Amino acid sequence: MLDLSTVNMTITGLQQHYTNGDFTPASLLHSLREANAKFNETNPVWIHLLSEDELNLYLERINDAKPEDLPLFGIPFAIKDNIDLAGIPTTAACPDFAYIPPANAFVVQLLLDAGAIPLGKTNLDQFATGLVGVRSPKPWGPCRNALNPEYISGGSSSGSAVTVANGLVCFSLGTDTAGSGRVPASLNNIVGLKPSKGLFSTTGVVPACRSLDCLTVFALTVDDANTVFDVAARFDSSDAYARANTYENGKRYYSSQIEALTIGVPAPSQLDFFGNEEAKALFSDSISQLQALGTNIIEIDFDAFTSAARLLYEGPWVTERYLATQDIIESSPHSMLPVIHTIISSGNKSSAIDVFQAQYKLQEYAQAANLQLNKVDAILTPTNGSIYTVAEVLNDPIELNSKLGFYTNFMNLLDCSAVAIPSGFYQNGVGFGVTLFHRAFSDKRLLGLCSALQRANSLPLGATALAGAPFKQDLRSAPSHINVVVCG
Amino acid sequence: MLDLSTVNMTITGLQQHYTNGDFTPASLLHSLREANAKFNETNPVWIHLLSEDELNLYLERINDAKPEDLPLFGIPFAIKDNIDLAGIPTTAACPDFAYIPPANAFVVQLLLDAGAIPLGKTNLDQFATGLVGVRSPKPWGPCRNALNPEYISGGSSSGSAVTVANGLVCFSLGTDTAGSGRVPASLNNIVGLKPSKGLFSTTGVVPACRSLDCLTVFALTVDDANTVFDVAARFDSSDAYARANTYENGKRYYSSQIEALTIGVPAPSQLDFFGNEEAKALFSDSISQLQALGTNIIEIDFDAFTSAARLLYEGPWVTERYLATQDIIESSPHSMLPVIHTIISSGNKSSAIDVFQAQYKLQEYAQAANLQLNKVDAILTPTNGSIYTVAEVLNDPIELNSKLGFYTNFMNLLDCSAVAIPSGFYQNGVGFGVTLFHRAFSDKRLLGLCSALQRANSLPLGATALAGAPFKQDLRSAPSHINVVVCG
Repeated sequence: MLDLSTVNMTITGLQQHYTNGDFTPASLLHSLREANAKFNETNPVWIHLLSEDELNLYLERINDAKPEDLPLFGIPFAIKDNIDLAGIPTTAACPDFAYIPPANAFVVQLLLDAGAIPLGKTNLDQFATGLVGVRSPKPWGPCRNALNPEYISGGSSSGSAVTVANGLVCFSLGTDTAGSGRVPASLNNIVGLKPSKGLFSTTGVVPACRSLDCLTVFALTVDDANTVFDVAARFDSSDAYARANTYENGKRYYSSQIEALTIGVPAPSQLDFFGNEEAKALFSDSISQLQALGTNIIEIDFDAFTSAARLLYEGPWVTERYLATQDIIESSPHSMLPVIHTIISSGNKSSAIDVFQAQYKLQEYAQAANLQLNKVDAILTPTNGSIYTVAEVLNDPIELNSKLGFYTNFMNLLDCSAVAIPSGFYQNGVGFGVTLFHRAFSDKRLLGLCSALQRANSLPLGATALAGAPFKQDLRSAPSHINVVVCG
Repeated sequence: MLDLSTVNMTITGLQQHYTNGDFTPASLLHSLREANAKFNETNPVWIHLLSEDELNLYLERINDAKPEDLPLFGIPFAIKDNIDLAGIPTTAACPDFAYIPPANAFVVQLLLDAGAIPLGKTNLDQFATGLVGVRSPKPWGPCRNALNPEYISGGSSSGSAVTVANGLVCFSLGTDTAGSGRVPASLNNIVGLKPSKGLFSTTGVVPACRSLDCLTVFALTVDDANTVFDVAARFDSSDAYARANTYENGKRYYSSQIEALTIGVPAPSQLDFFGNEEAKALFSDSISQLQALGTNIIEIDFDAFTSAARLLYEGPWVTERYLATQDIIESSPHSMLPVIHTIISSGNKSSAIDVFQAQYKLQEYAQAANLQLNKVDAILTPTNGSIYTVAEVLNDPIELNSKLGFYTNFMNLLDCSAVAIPSGFYQNGVGFGVTLFHRAFSDKRLLGLCSALQRANSLPLGATALAGAPFKQDLRSAPSHINVVVCG
């Protein structure tokens, strides 16, 4: 077995290892499989970790390829278990819902064709309904934070985030309807890219709210997320919600020249840290970091965004979740976790009048939000305003979940693109992240901005000891995380 | 009184008259007021024709201006009576619904500021619900076709179309949710511009389906519609559905250089003329006319468009009409025409599930439609597949109405921009029109294309004897319309 502590688990790092001939994909992947299996004994990240035989099938695909031929040659990744990997069950964390897909999800296929190697399917809040990571039934159960296991991992893409944070895969796929691709990125100190709706096909993804769902990427670095973006952002005409990328959001717009940019920040009275003073101070630091990079920070009116966020839960969009699970919720309601059933079963109560009225409201918020977006190149917010332990969330599952969505719920309703990146650490080691967002098809501009910010911040990557190239080996800004690092 | 037969009632014609000093706006407008009052005795085009005193208030506004200062100096226009003119009742053709608006609709204000002079408020299908023009109660009643009074005018913007066709105003405002700004253009041999959703503000317009409504322009020539477009297409941030124009849809893109364009035409099996062989032959002529201009005609798959069209009536969008009239339909249902009540009262029956399912369907059609739109610069269809007499429609009000929408109902659902222009005449004198359409924000390209086509066709304008500059004085192609011209 390979000594994984010698491996740089970023995409750029692995590409260098392969070019150097340090080890083969087979050697790395089998070592990772073993490390993940071991890790899974204490933290249920995996719903289905591939067997050695299953893994070998994917390794064979790149047998005759050279590293330089494939952009993701031998790069290990994880797949949230509401996204199809052909021949492996898709469960959406609901055993009775499980099916074996005959084909790969569109994006999974693109990644395989680019040389990436899947390690399996990861745990999630059941039917991707939740931002907490604890809404998974037996035999899996709650995922725990990679930096401090007393705390939640965040969700719904919990397993996908935690395995990346632990350096046990290079990147992973998540989904994001209300924040599921950003909240766990923040809490686990990794990057979460929620691309523009429709840029990544959702063919082969279990829907949550079809009109809002996005496939997302977790990675240790923005550069890596950007590399995956270039492979995955391919138009799929068989996905009704797919949209082709625009010229202005193409490869050449990934730029770290950010000095001239104007960044909007919500007025202080519009921020909510739910009483968490540490988070408040961490966000102040984040603003200062951006300012130090020469950007122009201005205050914007955040009201339309928070109003739209509230609408997601108060409005009739839960009807979409009902439609997505209609068969099982009607034929076998007890197959769902009680909390999931409580939420989704309300989705057949609303009228058409409710929907149109909510959509009119949303349109008003969108117009008001647009006026704010017109003033800035991006808006900076905390990714979430506070953090909670697993015990706290199990005790108050609905209310704390909705607090985690304060800065994330509006994003898809308002058709924005967002990148969540690490910005600092709480004293207890849990990650504090920020999100930069703007209108759809600003993915590349946001990635460039976040790349510059991540380079400048020089934080360690995830829960690893890695401050991987091109990052400085300076861990001063990570106060206590070393205590709780769990390496594979 | 001015001899109106000596007046060229196009915008470009009137601008020349004013520059020449042939007559004053006051002289023209008062003569038109009288002619319209007379015309209204036989065809109820007007719900409220301004009094002399009311008219004088608008004439005073341009007293100190010069023709060259204002793009619409002294240009007479009509306003569909679901659009607010300050101080004058807005009825939506429902007396019990009437209110007196304190302010002008956003677009009306822009037109007034540009020097245009309103003559009053025009008849319509009640609450803009219909494509026939006969769904107006006493004291107004059905509008009749400007070219053959046995036939319907088309609707819902019936009065606005007929008064333009008769040369009794230069242009008029209509609205268009399902075809109301195009069907009456076609039947009355005039131009109907249905701009991209959101380009013309709907502030001060009685909603039909808020998510779909458009304000539209009727004119004798495409050049005139284009002039009005340049005044009216101004972003209104107070309208939740407003969208700012794009650079590629700016003034400079109004071009009649159309030789290199590719025009899509539905496969013959996908066209429906409802048994009207004359319409079928007229449409063949239209294709030949476009081909003769050097465009490249290709066949496209029209299925997604007709499927979306059906969805408008079969789906839950009528809920929006219910919301728009909720107060009156619940408190005073008998205030509505029975046919309107029958249609709209079904709008509180649907569930949220119905809406999301229909929106998913629509999204699928939109994706399929996009693949067709990707192949062409514009799609050409008949504006409507057949024509009906007033008596026929009164006898079969729902079915014939829906046939009129076959080529128009999908347009706003699929977020397209469209221009309806005259293309020929039925033997009985009624107009046969075609529509050129493409995605939103292709208004200028479509206007340029239609301008070239109208110049080449050299048809007489509306029901007038005018083949106004720059049109050739060649009426050969208008077989029998002269018999039924009604001039002011």
